[in-house]
Amino acid sequence: MPHPLPAILAHLDQQAPAAEARLVDWLRIPSISAQPAHAGDCLRAADWLRDQLQGMGFTASVRPTAGHPVVVGNHPGPGGGAGGGGGAGGGAAAPHLLFYGHYDVQPADPLPLWTSPPFDPAVVQGPHGPRLVARGAVDDKGQCAMWLESLRAWHAVAGGPPCRVTVLVEGEEEVGSPSLDAFLAANRAELAADVAVISDTNMWDIDTPAITTRLRGMVYAQIDLRAARRDLHSGLYGGSARNPINLLTQILGELQDAEGRIRIPGFYDGIEEIPAAQRAEWAALGFDEAAFLGEVGLSLPAGERGRPPLERLWARPTADLNGIWGGYMGEGSKTVIAAEAHAKLSCRLVPGQDPQAVAEGIRRFVAERLPADCTAEVQVFSTTPGIAVPADSPWVQAARRALSAEYGRPAVLMGSGGSIPVVESLKRLLGLDSLLVGFGLNDDQVHSPNEKFELRCLHQGARSHARLLAELAGGA
Amino acid sequence: MPHPLPAILAHLDQQAPAAEARLVDWLRIPSISAQPAHAGDCLRAADWLRDQLQGMGFTASVRPTAGHPVVVGNHPGPGGGAGGGGGAGGGAAAPHLLFYGHYDVQPADPLPLWTSPPFDPAVVQGPHGPRLVARGAVDDKGQCAMWLESLRAWHAVAGGPPCRVTVLVEGEEEVGSPSLDAFLAANRAELAADVAVISDTNMWDIDTPAITTRLRGMVYAQIDLRAARRDLHSGLYGGSARNPINLLTQILGELQDAEGRIRIPGFYDGIEEIPAAQRAEWAALGFDEAAFLGEVGLSLPAGERGRPPLERLWARPTADLNGIWGGYMGEGSKTVIAAEAHAKLSCRLVPGQDPQAVAEGIRRFVAERLPADCTAEVQVFSTTPGIAVPADSPWVQAARRALSAEYGRPAVLMGSGGSIPVVESLKRLLGLDSLLVGFGLNDDQVHSPNEKFELRCLHQGARSHARLLAELAGGA
Repeated sequence: MPHPLPAILAHLDQQAPAAEARLVDWLRIPSISAQPAHAGDCLRAADWLRDQLQGMGFTASVRPTAGHPVVVGNHPGPGGGAGGGGGAGGGAAAPHLLFYGHYDVQPADPLPLWTSPPFDPAVVQGPHGPRLVARGAVDDKGQCAMWLESLRAWHAVAGGPPCRVTVLVEGEEEVGSPSLDAFLAANRAELAADVAVISDTNMWDIDTPAITTRLRGMVYAQIDLRAARRDLHSGLYGGSARNPINLLTQILGELQDAEGRIRIPGFYDGIEEIPAAQRAEWAALGFDEAAFLGEVGLSLPAGERGRPPLERLWARPTADLNGIWGGYMGEGSKTVIAAEAHAKLSCRLVPGQDPQAVAEGIRRFVAERLPADCTAEVQVFSTTPGIAVPADSPWVQAARRALSAEYGRPAVLMGSGGSIPVVESLKRLLGLDSLLVGFGLNDDQVHSPNEKFELRCLHQGARSHARLLAELAGGA
Repeated sequence: MPHPLPAILAHLDQQAPAAEARLVDWLRIPSISAQPAHAGDCLRAADWLRDQLQGMGFTASVRPTAGHPVVVGNHPGPGGGAGGGGGAGGGAAAPHLLFYGHYDVQPADPLPLWTSPPFDPAVVQGPHGPRLVARGAVDDKGQCAMWLESLRAWHAVAGGPPCRVTVLVEGEEEVGSPSLDAFLAANRAELAADVAVISDTNMWDIDTPAITTRLRGMVYAQIDLRAARRDLHSGLYGGSARNPINLLTQILGELQDAEGRIRIPGFYDGIEEIPAAQRAEWAALGFDEAAFLGEVGLSLPAGERGRPPLERLWARPTADLNGIWGGYMGEGSKTVIAAEAHAKLSCRLVPGQDPQAVAEGIRRFVAERLPADCTAEVQVFSTTPGIAVPADSPWVQAARRALSAEYGRPAVLMGSGGSIPVVESLKRLLGLDSLLVGFGLNDDQVHSPNEKFELRCLHQGARSHARLLAELAGGA
């Protein structure tokens, strides 16, 4: 019996218009998780997905949470019975995959900036051919549609996927996934798998597929300095009383040294240099930092001196002040020495850094610079570690083969400077590594008006996922 | 003929209840300059004063300005005709005095914190005897009432003051005197005099009279830093893009060195050390900085190391950040690299410093620390020089004699860390030095609920002004 992949790819090509129509149906549902008025739409978007899964051989259900529901689907893979089992899945040669995605979308405002209604998807021509313009076109309904269509094609041509598959699609990603951790913890056995597959990231460019193997973590903290117990007149007290705004700038002005290195105690502890092969691969990408900065009106790189730009963005930690406030912020003059001053500080973390140790380092950094009659409260809002998947893991190797075959050029191993909190949750609560294979582009206007998804990305993404299923299940 | 002073002082003592009643009348008029609804009350307060002046031999009028009116009065002194003349006034031995004050008051809110209605003056007992509680009780109607009563007593007993007197009382001091400079410039000849006498300052304590011979000036500036042309995602750009809040803290964190000295270029140029005699006099005051700071919850002096506290407060310049803002200032987290960051900076200046040079120094200080792809706008809102009156000026010597005679102990020469802008205007536009003789106390709750004036201060202040008129006119 020939391997079914060529027929599956042909089926996907032939079904492309129908796949577009299905995605358009889903995009018409304004499943905005942040807005209570759209709670019913979130449920409709979940129901739509459950029905699709049931139509391709899955058992599937819409599961309540404290917030918007989660859709869970399960397919036993070749020859298996529905439901049950976990962990080892289809055995060493046919792993059990968990596809994660989210059906909720960002609010669409400001509406006047949209060239077509955000929930009435439009196909418009762009430099790469037709693109779909709608809220959620790429984030994340469009990226979910790729693996959905690949599973549908496997079902149509081969009777089902080549390995056991669990689907987990939440409805609160855009509001910080407040219900997800509890859901994962409560359904550990049902959600057990060998690896998670997530499509919520980007390609390097439209011709170059990418696997994201590094994500930065984060410690986010607020620093509240207090000096005198009330605001003071700067004439009557200036020269005697401590000014907490001056103090805050003195403390935070020392966050970086002249070389751009962060001076928080122990900040770099545990960080390993990236492998030489990775560094060489990133250098070969020819990232144009001047163009990257020039697009936002800057010309001089910040961050650590002596590090290549992609290493600074993907593999080195940061300490950025996200907000600062205190004293008089109105028009004109007020001669006040404020009682308080505040700042928000986020440190992007890389693998090896211990988020709790970084949080403690922030506390020490501030405390060491604090006069005895002032107080500083450091509130830590979040702590997530940086994540790196080894380039030689079997999942990454399988994905490289699948993507390279589809695009006719090597898939790039990328980093992301941002965080994807679900990756950390899946690891912590289910013990799952994540394989991040995404088909978005940098200009997709995610979270902004006129969000779009290139149809070429949609279809090549679906073909890539079909190939990935074959590779992960044991080779095409 | 005996000198009339003893009879004048006796008259003031005998008239004390009537003087209190007159001040209460004036205090009942809610002449709040900041609130347009009280414009009619401001006019009433001005009319009241004009009538008082006319009743003690002055020509007086209420003069319109672009804002609230100014009251101008003139008395030719002994043997002269009303009106006309200027400059040399009554000759070398009898100078021409200009009394400056203001009839407007601060808003009274928050009203619930008042123990009696702010415009229904109440006499209550305090540790120093009876005190008058009302908005404006000391600032500045009560302090004006002292020199008014002294002029009234000279008129009643001696037929008029012992020298030529001009009175200038404005109605916009509490809103920054926006109309005063134009009025002074337009009426230079009419307002010409030899020295200005102002009662809007404090005693050292209720037993120790004081002459304020030093006022700090000010440069007030706003610094607006701009980096990228829009807000950026701190994950996607952190490590490459400049963060203007980090930059602002780096720049402003260098304002002071480890010894508390200001690093603005040329900042200390032109400052002369205060005379040894002044330093000794201030040291002898026994200022308790620990108590001064302890009252507001602080214990460690800030400012320049190695300088005595009163010198830091009165005779050394400062650089205080009065406000700072940028990026996300709400609840929780937002992972943004802001496009802009802002701060307000005021430098209190001392005599010798050129305000324009300090403003230029601030611009240079920022520019020298600015990356080439960021911009900084420095808006300068005000520039006023520090002022010092020589301790050996004939006016100060005369005031020392008058005050020491009244209180039975030497009058102290004080500084003030704040600014009194009218002093600079009188010097610049009329060429007048100011003699600052005030009878407020530190606990008078100026600008706050339950503003009060000790009746003992009111009466000894009136007696002091009567003595001062005699001293200035040629000795009692």
